[in-house]
Amino acid sequence: MDELPRTAVRILGIDPGLNTTGYGCIEAAGGSVRVVEAGVVRGRTRGSLAGRVREIYAGVRDAIAALRPSAVALEQLYSHYARPRTAILMGHARGVICLAAAEAEVAVVHYPATQIKKVLTGNGRAPKAQMQRAIQLELKLPTLPEPADVADALAVALTHHYLRSTRGILEAGTKRRGNTH
Amino acid sequence: MDELPRTAVRILGIDPGLNTTGYGCIEAAGGSVRVVEAGVVRGRTRGSLAGRVREIYAGVRDAIAALRPSAVALEQLYSHYARPRTAILMGHARGVICLAAAEAEVAVVHYPATQIKKVLTGNGRAPKAQMQRAIQLELKLPTLPEPADVADALAVALTHHYLRSTRGILEAGTKRRGNTH
Repeated sequence: MDELPRTAVRILGIDPGLNTTGYGCIEAAGGSVRVVEAGVVRGRTRGSLAGRVREIYAGVRDAIAALRPSAVALEQLYSHYARPRTAILMGHARGVICLAAAEAEVAVVHYPATQIKKVLTGNGRAPKAQMQRAIQLELKLPTLPEPADVADALAVALTHHYLRSTRGILEAGTKRRGNTH
Repeated sequence: MDELPRTAVRILGIDPGLNTTGYGCIEAAGGSVRVVEAGVVRGRTRGSLAGRVREIYAGVRDAIAALRPSAVALEQLYSHYARPRTAILMGHARGVICLAAAEAEVAVVHYPATQIKKVLTGNGRAPKAQMQRAIQLELKLPTLPEPADVADALAVALTHHYLRSTRGILEAGTKRRGNTH
Protein backbone atom coordinates (compact mmCIF):
# COMPACT_ATOMS: atom_id res chain seq x y z
CA MET A 1 0.00 0.00 0.00
CA ASP A 2 1.11 3.54 -0.70
CA GLU A 3 2.02 5.90 2.12
CA LEU A 4 -0.87 7.97 3.45
CA PRO A 5 0.20 11.62 3.71
CA ARG A 6 -0.43 13.15 7.10
CA THR A 7 -2.70 15.86 5.72
CA ALA A 8 -4.70 13.51 3.49
CA VAL A 9 -8.24 12.44 4.30
CA ARG A 10 -9.65 9.20 2.97
CA ILE A 11 -13.37 8.60 2.51
CA LEU A 12 -14.82 5.22 1.68
CA GLY A 13 -18.10 5.45 -0.22
CA ILE A 14 -20.23 2.31 -0.29
CA ASP A 15 -23.30 1.42 -2.35
CA PRO A 16 -24.92 -1.47 -0.46
CA GLY A 17 -26.64 -4.37 -2.18
CA LEU A 18 -27.04 -8.06 -1.41
CA ASN A 19 -25.88 -9.04 -4.89
CA THR A 20 -23.29 -6.40 -5.57
CA THR A 21 -21.91 -3.92 -3.06
CA GLY A 22 -19.83 -1.25 -4.74
CA TYR A 23 -17.12 0.67 -2.93
CA GLY A 24 -14.86 3.56 -3.82
CA CYS A 25 -12.18 5.11 -1.68
CA ILE A 26 -11.09 8.66 -2.44
CA GLU A 27 -8.23 10.62 -0.92
CA ALA A 28 -8.34 14.37 -0.57
CA ALA A 29 -5.04 16.15 -0.03
CA GLY A 30 -3.84 19.64 -0.82
CA GLY A 31 -6.96 20.62 -2.74
CA SER A 32 -6.98 17.61 -5.05
CA VAL A 33 -9.00 14.43 -4.91
CA ARG A 34 -8.03 11.05 -6.33
CA VAL A 35 -9.36 7.51 -6.32
CA VAL A 36 -7.28 5.24 -4.10
CA GLU A 37 -9.20 2.07 -4.90
CA ALA A 38 -12.64 1.12 -6.16
CA GLY A 39 -14.40 -2.14 -6.85
CA VAL A 40 -17.15 -4.48 -5.76
CA VAL A 41 -17.78 -6.93 -2.94
CA ARG A 42 -19.92 -9.61 -4.49
CA GLY A 43 -22.31 -11.72 -2.45
CA ARG A 44 -22.71 -15.22 -3.87
CA THR A 45 -25.76 -14.65 -6.00
CA ARG A 46 -27.23 -18.03 -5.14
CA GLY A 47 -26.10 -18.18 -1.54
CA SER A 48 -28.36 -17.86 1.49
CA LEU A 49 -29.10 -14.48 2.99
CA ALA A 50 -26.84 -15.33 5.94
CA GLY A 51 -24.03 -16.39 3.60
CA ARG A 52 -24.31 -13.20 1.61
CA VAL A 53 -24.24 -10.81 4.56
CA ARG A 54 -21.22 -12.71 5.84
CA GLU A 55 -19.36 -12.12 2.55
CA ILE A 56 -20.33 -8.47 2.43
CA TYR A 57 -19.24 -7.96 6.04
CA ALA A 58 -15.89 -9.66 5.43
CA GLY A 59 -15.29 -7.70 2.21
CA VAL A 60 -16.09 -4.33 3.76
CA ARG A 61 -14.15 -5.10 6.94
CA ASP A 62 -11.10 -5.97 4.84
CA ALA A 63 -11.49 -2.84 2.70
CA ILE A 64 -11.66 -0.64 5.81
CA ALA A 65 -8.61 -2.35 7.30
CA ALA A 66 -6.60 -1.94 4.09
CA LEU A 67 -7.72 1.57 3.12
CA ARG A 68 -7.96 3.18 6.57
CA PRO A 69 -10.68 5.74 5.76
CA SER A 70 -11.67 8.39 8.30
CA ALA A 71 -15.31 8.01 7.30
CA VAL A 72 -17.63 5.58 5.54
CA ALA A 73 -20.24 7.36 3.43
CA LEU A 74 -23.56 5.76 2.44
CA GLU A 75 -26.60 6.87 0.56
CA GLN A 76 -29.40 7.78 2.95
CA LEU A 77 -32.35 5.45 3.43
CA TYR A 78 -35.81 5.99 1.90
CA SER A 79 -34.89 6.00 -1.76
CA HIS A 80 -36.28 2.62 -2.82
CA TYR A 81 -39.86 2.63 -1.59
CA ALA A 82 -41.14 1.65 -5.02
CA ARG A 83 -39.55 -1.75 -4.42
CA PRO A 84 -39.90 -2.54 -0.70
CA ARG A 85 -38.43 -6.03 -0.94
CA THR A 86 -35.25 -4.68 -2.53
CA ALA A 87 -35.12 -1.94 0.10
CA ILE A 88 -35.42 -4.37 3.01
CA LEU A 89 -32.80 -6.70 1.54
CA MET A 90 -30.56 -3.68 1.00
CA GLY A 91 -31.14 -2.91 4.70
CA HIS A 92 -29.48 -6.24 5.57
CA ALA A 93 -26.37 -5.31 3.57
CA ARG A 94 -26.41 -1.82 5.06
CA GLY A 95 -26.60 -3.27 8.57
CA VAL A 96 -23.42 -5.31 8.26
CA ILE A 97 -21.63 -2.43 6.53
CA CYS A 98 -22.50 -0.12 9.46
CA LEU A 99 -21.30 -2.88 11.78
CA ALA A 100 -17.95 -3.23 9.97
CA ALA A 101 -17.42 0.54 10.27
CA ALA A 102 -18.48 0.64 13.93
CA GLU A 103 -16.19 -2.28 14.83
CA ALA A 104 -13.29 -0.38 13.21
CA GLU A 105 -14.32 2.83 15.04
CA VAL A 106 -14.84 4.62 11.73
CA ALA A 107 -17.63 7.23 11.50
CA VAL A 108 -20.59 6.47 9.24
CA VAL A 109 -22.25 9.37 7.39
CA HIS A 110 -25.39 9.28 5.25
CA TYR A 111 -26.62 11.52 2.42
CA PRO A 112 -29.93 11.48 0.57
CA ALA A 113 -29.79 10.59 -3.13
CA THR A 114 -31.09 14.03 -4.12
CA GLN A 115 -28.36 15.76 -2.13
CA ILE A 116 -25.67 13.62 -3.78
CA LYS A 117 -26.98 14.56 -7.22
CA LYS A 118 -27.29 18.23 -6.27
CA VAL A 119 -23.75 18.40 -4.91
CA LEU A 120 -22.18 16.71 -7.94
CA THR A 121 -24.23 18.25 -10.76
CA GLY A 122 -26.17 21.16 -9.25
CA ASN A 123 -29.37 19.26 -10.06
CA GLY A 124 -31.06 17.05 -7.44
CA ARG A 125 -32.81 15.16 -10.22
CA ALA A 126 -29.83 14.72 -12.52
CA PRO A 127 -30.09 11.70 -14.84
CA LYS A 128 -27.66 8.82 -14.47
CA ALA A 129 -25.52 9.79 -17.47
CA GLN A 130 -25.00 13.31 -16.12
CA MET A 131 -23.95 11.90 -12.74
CA GLN A 132 -21.49 9.53 -14.35
CA ARG A 133 -19.89 12.33 -16.37
CA ALA A 134 -19.60 14.47 -13.22
CA ILE A 135 -17.87 11.66 -11.32
CA GLN A 136 -15.50 10.98 -14.23
CA LEU A 137 -14.64 14.67 -14.50
CA GLU A 138 -14.21 15.33 -10.76
CA LEU A 139 -11.93 12.34 -10.31
CA LYS A 140 -10.12 12.72 -13.66
CA LEU A 141 -10.91 9.15 -14.62
CA PRO A 142 -10.00 8.00 -18.13
CA THR A 143 -13.18 5.88 -18.32
CA LEU A 144 -16.55 5.72 -16.57
CA PRO A 145 -16.48 3.72 -13.34
CA GLU A 146 -18.20 0.37 -13.79
CA PRO A 147 -20.42 -1.27 -12.69
CA ALA A 148 -22.87 1.49 -11.69
CA ASP A 149 -22.51 0.46 -8.02
CA VAL A 150 -18.89 1.64 -8.07
CA ALA A 151 -19.85 5.00 -9.58
CA ASP A 152 -22.58 5.40 -6.95
CA ALA A 153 -20.08 4.59 -4.19
CA LEU A 154 -17.63 7.19 -5.51
CA ALA A 155 -20.49 9.73 -5.77
CA VAL A 156 -21.41 9.50 -2.10
CA ALA A 157 -17.75 9.63 -1.08
CA LEU A 158 -17.27 12.80 -3.16
CA THR A 159 -20.42 14.28 -1.63
CA HIS A 160 -19.07 13.79 1.86
CA HIS A 161 -15.77 15.30 0.83
CA TYR A 162 -17.38 18.46 -0.61
CA LEU A 163 -19.92 18.96 2.17
CA ARG A 164 -17.30 18.28 4.79
CA SER A 165 -15.04 20.94 3.25
CA THR A 166 -17.95 23.37 2.95
CA ARG A 167 -19.13 22.73 6.48
CA GLY A 168 -15.57 23.30 7.63
CA ILE A 169 -15.77 26.82 6.21
CA LEU A 170 -19.38 27.60 7.11
CA GLU A 171 -19.47 26.11 10.55
CA ALA A 172 -15.97 26.67 11.81
CA GLY A 173 -16.21 27.10 15.54
CA THR A 174 -19.90 26.18 15.70
CA LYS A 175 -21.46 22.98 16.84
CA ARG A 176 -21.98 20.40 14.13
CA ARG A 177 -24.89 18.12 13.60
CA GLY A 178 -24.49 14.76 11.97
CA ASN A 179 -27.02 12.48 10.36
CA THR A 180 -27.26 9.27 12.26
CA HIS A 181 -29.59 7.35 9.97
CA MET B 1 -24.98 -23.13 32.41
CA ASP B 2 -26.94 -26.35 32.60
CA GLU B 3 -25.83 -29.47 30.77
CA LEU B 4 -27.26 -29.90 27.25
CA PRO B 5 -28.61 -33.46 26.84
CA ARG B 6 -27.30 -35.24 23.76
CA THR B 7 -30.76 -35.75 22.30
CA ALA B 8 -31.93 -32.21 22.97
CA VAL B 9 -32.31 -29.63 20.23
CA ARG B 10 -32.10 -25.94 20.97
CA ILE B 11 -33.70 -23.30 18.78
CA LEU B 12 -33.07 -19.60 19.21
CA GLY B 13 -35.96 -17.46 18.01
CA ILE B 14 -35.22 -13.78 17.41
CA ASP B 15 -37.54 -10.83 16.79
CA PRO B 16 -35.30 -8.17 15.22
CA GLY B 17 -35.69 -4.47 15.87
CA LEU B 18 -33.28 -1.55 16.11
CA ASN B 19 -34.71 -0.45 19.44
CA THR B 20 -35.52 -3.79 21.01
CA THR B 21 -34.49 -7.18 19.70
CA GLY B 22 -36.27 -9.98 21.54
CA TYR B 23 -34.84 -13.48 21.79
CA GLY B 24 -36.10 -16.75 23.17
CA CYS B 25 -34.26 -20.05 23.28
CA ILE B 26 -36.28 -23.24 23.58
CA GLU B 27 -35.04 -26.77 24.10
CA ALA B 28 -36.90 -29.78 22.76
CA ALA B 29 -36.05 -33.15 24.26
CA GLY B 30 -38.02 -36.35 24.65
CA GLY B 31 -41.29 -34.86 23.41
CA SER B 32 -41.27 -31.85 25.72
CA VAL B 33 -40.31 -28.26 25.08
CA ARG B 34 -39.05 -25.74 27.60
CA VAL B 35 -37.68 -22.21 27.63
CA VAL B 36 -33.95 -22.17 28.30
CA GLU B 37 -33.60 -18.41 28.31
CA ALA B 38 -35.45 -15.41 26.92
CA GLY B 39 -34.92 -11.69 27.00
CA VAL B 40 -34.05 -8.62 24.99
CA VAL B 41 -30.97 -7.15 23.41
CA ARG B 42 -31.53 -3.42 23.59
CA GLY B 43 -29.93 -1.00 21.16
CA ARG B 44 -29.22 2.36 22.73
CA THR B 45 -32.37 4.16 21.74
CA ARG B 46 -30.54 7.42 21.08
CA GLY B 47 -27.39 5.97 19.62
CA SER B 48 -26.36 6.11 15.98
CA LEU B 49 -27.48 3.43 13.56
CA ALA B 50 -23.93 2.04 13.50
CA GLY B 51 -23.78 1.98 17.30
CA ARG B 52 -27.10 0.18 17.51
CA VAL B 53 -26.27 -2.56 15.01
CA ARG B 54 -23.02 -3.08 16.85
CA GLU B 55 -24.88 -3.65 20.13
CA ILE B 56 -27.38 -5.98 18.52
CA TYR B 57 -24.63 -7.97 16.84
CA ALA B 58 -22.68 -8.31 20.09
CA GLY B 59 -25.78 -9.29 22.05
CA VAL B 60 -26.89 -11.95 19.57
CA ARG B 61 -23.36 -13.26 19.11
CA ASP B 62 -23.04 -13.69 22.88
CA ALA B 63 -26.46 -15.35 23.13
CA ILE B 64 -25.54 -17.86 20.40
CA ALA B 65 -22.21 -18.60 22.08
CA ALA B 66 -23.86 -19.15 25.46
CA LEU B 67 -26.97 -21.03 24.33
CA ARG B 68 -25.49 -23.11 21.48
CA PRO B 69 -28.66 -23.40 19.38
CA SER B 70 -28.72 -25.64 16.32
CA ALA B 71 -30.81 -23.07 14.46
CA VAL B 72 -31.71 -19.40 14.60
CA ALA B 73 -35.35 -18.78 13.62
CA LEU B 74 -36.61 -15.42 12.32
CA GLU B 75 -39.88 -14.10 11.05
CA GLN B 76 -39.88 -13.93 7.26
CA LEU B 77 -39.56 -10.59 5.48
CA TYR B 78 -42.43 -8.69 3.85
CA SER B 79 -44.66 -8.19 6.85
CA HIS B 80 -44.16 -4.50 7.47
CA TYR B 81 -44.84 -2.86 4.13
CA ALA B 82 -47.28 -0.43 5.68
CA ARG B 83 -44.29 1.19 7.39
CA PRO B 84 -41.36 1.00 4.95
CA ARG B 85 -38.98 3.00 7.11
CA THR B 86 -39.47 0.61 10.04
CA ALA B 87 -39.05 -2.35 7.68
CA ILE B 88 -35.77 -1.06 6.26
CA LEU B 89 -34.40 -0.26 9.72
CA MET B 90 -35.48 -3.74 10.85
CA GLY B 91 -33.52 -5.04 7.83
CA HIS B 92 -30.35 -3.55 9.37
CA ALA B 93 -30.93 -5.46 12.62
CA ARG B 94 -31.81 -8.59 10.67
CA GLY B 95 -28.60 -8.31 8.66
CA VAL B 96 -26.31 -8.35 11.69
CA ILE B 97 -28.35 -11.15 13.30
CA CYS B 98 -27.91 -13.29 10.18
CA LEU B 99 -24.22 -12.41 10.28
CA ALA B 100 -23.86 -13.49 13.92
CA ALA B 101 -25.49 -16.84 13.08
CA ALA B 102 -23.39 -17.33 9.94
CA GLU B 103 -20.16 -16.55 11.79
CA ALA B 104 -21.11 -19.18 14.38
CA GLU B 105 -22.00 -21.66 11.59
CA VAL B 106 -25.59 -21.87 12.87
CA ALA B 107 -28.38 -22.33 10.31
CA VAL B 108 -30.87 -19.47 9.85
CA VAL B 109 -34.49 -20.33 9.07
CA HIS B 110 -37.35 -17.96 8.23
CA TYR B 111 -41.12 -18.27 8.57
CA PRO B 112 -43.86 -15.90 7.39
CA ALA B 113 -45.95 -14.27 10.14
CA THR B 114 -49.11 -16.00 8.91
CA GLN B 115 -47.44 -19.40 9.11
CA ILE B 116 -46.28 -18.75 12.68
CA LYS B 117 -49.85 -17.83 13.70
CA LYS B 118 -51.29 -20.80 11.85
CA VAL B 119 -48.90 -23.27 13.47
CA LEU B 120 -49.44 -21.98 17.00
CA THR B 121 -53.19 -21.31 16.94
CA GLY B 122 -54.56 -22.93 13.78
CA ASN B 123 -55.48 -19.44 12.54
CA GLY B 124 -53.14 -17.49 10.23
CA ARG B 125 -54.82 -14.26 11.30
CA ALA B 126 -54.93 -14.93 15.03
CA PRO B 127 -55.05 -11.78 17.18
CA LYS B 128 -52.14 -10.95 19.48
CA ALA B 129 -53.89 -12.08 22.66
CA GLN B 130 -54.65 -15.52 21.20
CA MET B 131 -51.00 -15.90 20.15
CA GLN B 132 -49.79 -14.94 23.61
CA ARG B 133 -52.08 -17.49 25.27
CA ALA B 134 -50.86 -20.19 22.87
CA ILE B 135 -47.22 -19.44 23.66
CA GLN B 136 -47.88 -19.41 27.40
CA LEU B 137 -49.73 -22.72 27.16
CA GLU B 138 -47.24 -24.51 24.89
CA LEU B 139 -44.30 -23.53 27.03
CA LYS B 140 -46.12 -23.91 30.37
CA LEU B 141 -45.17 -20.39 31.41
CA PRO B 142 -46.66 -19.02 34.65
CA THR B 143 -47.01 -15.55 33.09
CA LEU B 144 -47.13 -14.04 29.61
CA PRO B 145 -43.69 -13.39 28.13
CA GLU B 146 -42.92 -9.66 28.09
CA PRO B 147 -42.20 -7.46 26.25
CA ALA B 148 -44.05 -8.55 23.11
CA ASP B 149 -40.71 -8.94 21.29
CA VAL B 150 -39.84 -11.85 23.57
CA ALA B 151 -43.17 -13.58 22.94
CA ASP B 152 -42.68 -13.10 19.18
CA ALA B 153 -39.20 -14.59 19.40
CA LEU B 154 -40.51 -17.63 21.29
CA ALA B 155 -43.32 -18.00 18.73
CA VAL B 156 -40.98 -18.30 15.76
CA ALA B 157 -38.73 -20.72 17.69
CA LEU B 158 -41.76 -22.91 18.50
CA THR B 159 -42.85 -22.76 14.85
CA HIS B 160 -39.50 -24.07 13.70
CA HIS B 161 -39.64 -26.81 16.32
CA TYR B 162 -43.09 -28.01 15.22
CA LEU B 163 -42.49 -27.76 11.47
CA ARG B 164 -39.10 -29.38 11.84
CA SER B 165 -40.68 -32.32 13.70
CA THR B 166 -43.50 -32.57 11.14
CA ARG B 167 -41.12 -32.39 8.20
CA GLY B 168 -39.04 -35.08 9.82
CA ILE B 169 -42.04 -37.42 9.62
CA LEU B 170 -43.41 -36.29 6.26
CA GLU B 171 -40.18 -35.96 4.37
CA ALA B 172 -37.99 -38.64 5.88
CA GLY B 173 -35.71 -39.84 3.15
CA THR B 174 -36.74 -37.16 0.68
CA LYS B 175 -34.90 -34.03 -0.29
CA ARG B 176 -35.66 -30.99 1.82
CA ARG B 177 -36.07 -27.44 0.71
CA GLY B 178 -35.18 -24.58 2.97
CA ASN B 179 -36.16 -20.94 2.83
CA THR B 180 -33.12 -18.80 2.38
CA HIS B 181 -34.72 -15.36 2.70
